[in-house]
Amino acid sequence: MPLWKIYHPPGSFSAADKKALSERITECYRGLPKFYVIVVFQEVAADSFYKGGEAVNNFVRIWVDHIARSFAPDAKAQKAKWLSWAEKALAPYIKDRGLDWEIHIDETPFDLWQVQGIAPPPANSEMEKVWVQENRPVPYSSAEENQATDVRPA
Amino acid sequence: MPLWKIYHPPGSFSAADKKALSERITECYRGLPKFYVIVVFQEVAADSFYKGGEAVNNFVRIWVDHIARSFAPDAKAQKAKWLSWAEKALAPYIKDRGLDWEIHIDETPFDLWQVQGIAPPPANSEMEKVWVQENRPVPYSSAEENQATDVRPA
Amino acid sequence: MPLWKIYHPPGSFSAADKKALSERITECYRGLPKFYVIVVFQEVAADSFYKGGEAVNNFVRIWVDHIARSFAPDAKAQKAKWLSWAEKALAPYIKDRGLDWEIHIDETPFDLWQVQGIAPPPANSEMEKVWVQENRPVPYSSAEENQATDVRPA
Repeated sequence: MPLWKIYHPPGSFSAADKKALSERITECYRGLPKFYVIVVFQEVAADSFYKGGEAVNNFVRIWVDHIARSFAPDAKAQKAKWLSWAEKALAPYIKDRGLDWEIHIDETPFDLWQVQGIAPPPANSEMEKVWVQENRPVPYSSAEENQATDVRPA
Repeated sequence: MPLWKIYHPPGSFSAADKKALSERITECYRGLPKFYVIVVFQEVAADSFYKGGEAVNNFVRIWVDHIARSFAPDAKAQKAKWLSWAEKALAPYIKDRGLDWEIHIDETPFDLWQVQGIAPPPANSEMEKVWVQENRPVPYSSAEENQATDVRPA
Repeated sequence: MPLWKIYHPPGSFSAADKKALSERITECYRGLPKFYVIVVFQEVAADSFYKGGEAVNNFVRIWVDHIARSFAPDAKAQKAKWLSWAEKALAPYIKDRGLDWEIHIDETPFDLWQVQGIAPPPANSEMEKVWVQENRPVPYSSAEENQATDVRPA
């Protein structure tokens, strides 16, 4: 679900840095299948990267799409808290190195999303737990999923 | 309208593959002007491409913006059907080659979109049919468009 | 806030062109802090860039995320006017050179956005004016911000 795109100056992150950053970002989504978390790094040379009309060689611009979960529109405190976790995940490789940075997140429709041709199971469903445990998109039938999440009173 | 962005491992698609894929994707939008369908391929090296904190060299991540048409929010079956077409279009070049993949689609505002400086005609309007036939953004006046879609009873 | 991504043919813009374009785009957001306006240019070779299934070598595809401000959903005239300004900003480097082009804008949630770890001040607040004047993300306390935007009758 989350797709992270990180535009950064050439050479600002080593391969080891990028792996570590992607692990730290993945940790921000505890409870979700790990394989949902995709991070793409892209170098942008200063002559292709502008902030307020000025070329930048010290700036990291991150955009993120959230799909598997969305915040309630008015859950301002919850959003701020989540962002503070994300900031903590990023800090050792960005803020603490003196790089400038900016991040924004969009939320996109759950049911316009597929992994390996499969519509991911509903949030917090039994099948989602299977996906977490196996860390892969386990095929399932819709009927199976409906049964799994059936919570009729006994 | 649809903008497709395809992140893929270096060398996974030849130029002929990419052309064929873009043609197959265009076919998914039958009824729309063909020139609406933009596909951008981008190679991402394994040391810049992470899934759940692990570098990937066998993974295709696709994100799409839909503009000209949007699904009714609760039209779950319709969305699933459309996605199944998209999956079929992609399969020979991705699934059938043993690549892993994931796709998600966002829907963006119709009236914040322009082609060659022109606001595209409304869905299913007479002018849109002209754009389909000529496969280019034919200039038109708003008045003309309003007249074309005027459906007063006789 | 606005993040502009410009896909263009290799070599179509010089570094000076890109700087000038980014300045002209920044001008479209007068009243906002200049440093909000990020523009990323990316070359796309013809064999990775398709329109309606055909490779393109003369086409510029622009996608934009708006965050700091959004249009009222039904403010069609206002959107069209703003787009006309954006088109004027782009024209000398795109239309007037005979390149084809397309642009679309999405609007993403204000409170899922941070600059240097700071939630940007509300639109038109006193603190936003400080950010405009200093052209940098000046830290502030939420209390301070609330006071600044307190508009109780005297």
